[in-house]
Amino acid sequence: MERTDPMQALFEPRTVAVVGASRTPGKVGNLVVSNLLSAGYQGAILPVNPSGGEILGLTAVTDVSLLPEGVDLAVLCVPREQTPDCLEALGARGCRAAAVITSGFKEVGREGYHLEQRIAEICARHSMVLLGPNSLGLVNARGGLNATFAAGNPEPGGIAFFSQSGALCIAILDAAQGKGIGFSKFVSLGNKAAIDEIDMLRTLTRDPDTKVILGYVENIQDGQEFLRAARDATAVKPVIMIKSGSTPAGARAASSHTGAMAGAEDACQAAFVQSGVIRASGIEEMFHLALAFATQPLPTGPNLCVVTNSGGPGILAADAAERARITLAPLRGQTIEELRAILPPHAALYNPVDIIGDARADRFAQALRIAAADPLAHMVLALITPTPAMIAEEAAQAVADLARELGKPMAACFMGETKVAGAREILRRAGVPCYDYPEPAVEALAALFRHAEWKKRPLPVEVCYMSNKFMAQDVMAKARAKGYRELVEFQALDLLRAYGLPVPKTELARTSDEAARAAKAIGYPVALKIASPQISHKTDVGGVAVNIGDEENLRRAFLSITNRARRVKEAYVLGCLVQEMAPRGSREVFAGFKRDAQFGPLVLFGLGGVYVEVLRDVSCRLAPLSLSDVGEMVREIRSYPLLRGVRGEPPVDFRAIEDVLLTLSQIAVDFPEITECDFNPVMAHPGGALVVDARFTLAPALGNGG
Amino acid sequence: MERTDPMQALFEPRTVAVVGASRTPGKVGNLVVSNLLSAGYQGAILPVNPSGGEILGLTAVTDVSLLPEGVDLAVLCVPREQTPDCLEALGARGCRAAAVITSGFKEVGREGYHLEQRIAEICARHSMVLLGPNSLGLVNARGGLNATFAAGNPEPGGIAFFSQSGALCIAILDAAQGKGIGFSKFVSLGNKAAIDEIDMLRTLTRDPDTKVILGYVENIQDGQEFLRAARDATAVKPVIMIKSGSTPAGARAASSHTGAMAGAEDACQAAFVQSGVIRASGIEEMFHLALAFATQPLPTGPNLCVVTNSGGPGILAADAAERARITLAPLRGQTIEELRAILPPHAALYNPVDIIGDARADRFAQALRIAAADPLAHMVLALITPTPAMIAEEAAQAVADLARELGKPMAACFMGETKVAGAREILRRAGVPCYDYPEPAVEALAALFRHAEWKKRPLPVEVCYMSNKFMAQDVMAKARAKGYRELVEFQALDLLRAYGLPVPKTELARTSDEAARAAKAIGYPVALKIASPQISHKTDVGGVAVNIGDEENLRRAFLSITNRARRVKEAYVLGCLVQEMAPRGSREVFAGFKRDAQFGPLVLFGLGGVYVEVLRDVSCRLAPLSLSDVGEMVREIRSYPLLRGVRGEPPVDFRAIEDVLLTLSQIAVDFPEITECDFNPVMAHPGGALVVDARFTLAPALGNGG
Repeated sequence: MERTDPMQALFEPRTVAVVGASRTPGKVGNLVVSNLLSAGYQGAILPVNPSGGEILGLTAVTDVSLLPEGVDLAVLCVPREQTPDCLEALGARGCRAAAVITSGFKEVGREGYHLEQRIAEICARHSMVLLGPNSLGLVNARGGLNATFAAGNPEPGGIAFFSQSGALCIAILDAAQGKGIGFSKFVSLGNKAAIDEIDMLRTLTRDPDTKVILGYVENIQDGQEFLRAARDATAVKPVIMIKSGSTPAGARAASSHTGAMAGAEDACQAAFVQSGVIRASGIEEMFHLALAFATQPLPTGPNLCVVTNSGGPGILAADAAERARITLAPLRGQTIEELRAILPPHAALYNPVDIIGDARADRFAQALRIAAADPLAHMVLALITPTPAMIAEEAAQAVADLARELGKPMAACFMGETKVAGAREILRRAGVPCYDYPEPAVEALAALFRHAEWKKRPLPVEVCYMSNKFMAQDVMAKARAKGYRELVEFQALDLLRAYGLPVPKTELARTSDEAARAAKAIGYPVALKIASPQISHKTDVGGVAVNIGDEENLRRAFLSITNRARRVKEAYVLGCLVQEMAPRGSREVFAGFKRDAQFGPLVLFGLGGVYVEVLRDVSCRLAPLSLSDVGEMVREIRSYPLLRGVRGEPPVDFRAIEDVLLTLSQIAVDFPEITECDFNPVMAHPGGALVVDARFTLAPALGNGG
Repeated sequence: MERTDPMQALFEPRTVAVVGASRTPGKVGNLVVSNLLSAGYQGAILPVNPSGGEILGLTAVTDVSLLPEGVDLAVLCVPREQTPDCLEALGARGCRAAAVITSGFKEVGREGYHLEQRIAEICARHSMVLLGPNSLGLVNARGGLNATFAAGNPEPGGIAFFSQSGALCIAILDAAQGKGIGFSKFVSLGNKAAIDEIDMLRTLTRDPDTKVILGYVENIQDGQEFLRAARDATAVKPVIMIKSGSTPAGARAASSHTGAMAGAEDACQAAFVQSGVIRASGIEEMFHLALAFATQPLPTGPNLCVVTNSGGPGILAADAAERARITLAPLRGQTIEELRAILPPHAALYNPVDIIGDARADRFAQALRIAAADPLAHMVLALITPTPAMIAEEAAQAVADLARELGKPMAACFMGETKVAGAREILRRAGVPCYDYPEPAVEALAALFRHAEWKKRPLPVEVCYMSNKFMAQDVMAKARAKGYRELVEFQALDLLRAYGLPVPKTELARTSDEAARAAKAIGYPVALKIASPQISHKTDVGGVAVNIGDEENLRRAFLSITNRARRVKEAYVLGCLVQEMAPRGSREVFAGFKRDAQFGPLVLFGLGGVYVEVLRDVSCRLAPLSLSDVGEMVREIRSYPLLRGVRGEPPVDFRAIEDVLLTLSQIAVDFPEITECDFNPVMAHPGGALVVDARFTLAPALGNGG
């Protein structure tokens, strides 16, 4: 980091003041000083304690005002009420960063919330970086900085971890000891009054000591900024995160017609997908993945080669590979022959290579070397059970030796416990990730592959659509002028036309005579739809008739639709829309967007009709969408084969659907006052896509559309 | 076990001969003797070695023929070629059980397969129980029997484990040491020439020492028998199994129209579901679940109460509960008040109960006791991170004390490693399952709940439908007489009528005049469908017209359909079927069965039309079906809401659909020569269900239908 980076004062302080330092062992203000000393911090440690004197051999000053000018980092463990004054005084002395360990802020309710706002404001005013409050502190392995009150110093290594939960920091620090998990940075974010996951992603992306970034968050405040920071990070190094609190209970809160399908959880998930962040389902998985990322190169392809002395676990590994969407490709003929030459007749030469139960370590070492050298093997799993014939340590040494020179990602799974402890230690020291069971080993390798694919993606192309902005603005202005909360259908059609979206030929007919004239011009068959600003779910009130073949039926339908609509309370009936029918063989799809409070516009796509609701077969991405985003959206729904065409049907025009989605994204960006938009149905057919019905929901007042 | 049980000679032998015993340390024949001695086996151990002499202090006889009459168990570690003669000699001496450790049989190909058949025949002829070959041996904690060549004696306990993979046995024996996992029986099944998973389920169900049965299998040979044995077992105790090799590659093999969706894997999964066997996805999960089942009572309801000193992990536990489909219900008002009285103001009183980070063990103990006592808490999770204030051992002791008297299932999660090792040991000794992370703890408790629900289910009711058997047999006889591989549509309709299934009014019309007469009698609108034994996918050849409203259109359709059909090569055209149309508002569903080579008839149900293929939203159960089976089948498909009715539609007649499924099951049982059957579509409507189209595929020759 360059000295101009404000985060440098936090992570690489030349001086650390501990405000609220204590002589009493076990107290937070004592533990921090003790950790700073034991971790080997080389800078100046300046304890502050009202009684002065010596604390763990360091002379304490009695007040913040007695600290030297320009202290880099102050760690605060003072009582809550003293925090604002203390920060004010630190700011006045030119202190550059504060880590506030003190708790009792936002997490305890309204009063704490206001106090937290106050300390954030003080720090901002003094240009002081603020970590916390309610933080456990932070660790930087480089420079031996351990400014936490947690027991034990983490081993140094390539993994950076930040967490919104202090308890998790404590548990992970304890669990990591002796597991070969070493940290570059370890940061407890606490209440995130200032520094949050976005700052951490930015800092850690630049950090040469960090090979892989791990994070635990419970909420993401600025979703769009997170998306950008995360995207920048994953272009440089893998990011693995846990987002907790993603229960349906939360998603149900944000309800509306399509909202039921895409709550904050969907938006957050879209952000992870679009930024290439690997989402771990739990802490154990996070570290399983991290171990592989921290030690192994990325593979050049999806093929896993398993070499094992045990059939059953080999099958479990194959099952796991299939589930993790990587392949166990057969090896080359030449490799098979080489294996045949050294293996007993009943060994399995194909992949998984099973050298069978009576194998000693030398047979394993030979087979592993031959199989791993195959160019068709992009990743290698060494899978061992401690049979009587197998000396696990020797097998581990063979894995370690090969890993050093192979240049491909390797993982090991040594099953058992007592008999493989030595082997696991050998692999730990050699930097080969070793797992207790085949499944996590395979999943970690699969994650390496997926990340490699992510990095190989073409840069996202954002598309800006030419549109008749004047016409669009005009439509919106008229709707707002009338105080509509929703565009009337013909306004919606005008908006679609302004964006060049394909819509069916449509005429507003106020009388059945007008309808007959319009239908004749459009050409039968036609559809009739009620036109009323108050009626949005037209089918619910019997407001739609399709496939009308002649004038007689048209007139009859016009009357019955308008009569039914007049019975709807407070509905002002404009007449009916006469509409061209979509071509035969069209497939109904749905496209729309809604706005997430944290992540902004979320574009949705799925099969149309009742399936949207019932099967929840919906894909989502955050706007603005790139070309690859829409390509994925269309293809990742389960009902994608219906679009590609089953039973001899021709495929729909995918480019046309993608155009609709890109335009939706553009509309969402252009008009923040449109809070929600549904195109349902869009009739997708081999020659294009027709937006048959479109609903635009508007924010209550101008400028309140975010 | 009573002395009449043939398995008793295997598990509770009074004498054990080790044939192929060896003096050489490390050899299998030496390890077996040494394990028998070290495990404290009290019966007679009789080594057999051609050289005679002493082996580990026991006098060896030089030949099997010199063994006393009526040895209970012989463990064979002789060279493969000697195995048949050796078993023959043992049989002649009245030996009652053989565990064949020797390998080189079925697993090495054709020659070994024949040898295996031979030894199975020899054992059967002598009424000798046969374990293996290619087995690691077996352990029975009661009686100190360790007749394996694996290193180390497992601790005694309530878990029985059988495995088709010897390597897995070795790994698990090693991993279990010191983890609090104790075994009642431990059996390596090897090649399953005689004893297989079915025998093990039967034996272990009766075994008073076994509280929970674990099994690992790679194939299940007799699926129907497995289903019965597993159902009997789960009525008495939990069964947790891993079935490996369940990759799509295998499922793809058995392909046909619907076969693509339901390969052996689906049949196996159905067997697990219908027998209440808990399927573990891997070894780690199997033991996570086993620990809870072996130590905890079953809960009386789905509510989990979490008491924790750490917010983040509490959220992770709540997420896990939601995913595992159990609830975190709020506690009673009285409980909340009691908690409020002892907890600091900022603690979370609701569920999860967060006693916050500064809590000591005494606060935890108090809160845990109060919350756990709430009648709304059916299961309790004690979730601790080792904060500086928390002495983990004290917290663990509080959990252990409460668990002894609570009478509800409890689990603990003590996160970390070094600081919680002592706590975990306390819990291990107290028999409280303790996990490293919240997720497996929650999942284990959820499994207890699901098993409790399973045990509470009403006994399965199998339904036998009255049918006109004579008529059904007549239809089948005619079809077979003509050598058809598929029933012609009118035959299929007769079969449906024989079983009392609701079918649309249908007439076979050979000419358009006949069609016009039939349509008049049935009433317009009608459907026309080609009638030809050679044409099964009617729509593919343009052989279907629906919604025909008058005679003119009917005649036109008749001609065009029959003309098109005559162009189909080798198709003999009988004419057209004139058919009543299903009521408006019907929903298309699909029902059928196919036969699995191992598991017998598998009944399938799903949404009709292209969705069957594309969305694979299909439920399956093995016939014969019970009332609860069909109830579940109809409700577990994702598109179930469509049947219940969306947007104001009335629900379909579920009883009518269930009747169709039960009848299908009956047909599958009655006519083994029907290899496959599709009802597609079945039109389900509020007043019933109409089987519109039915295909019955017949086995090539009589009596070859299994």
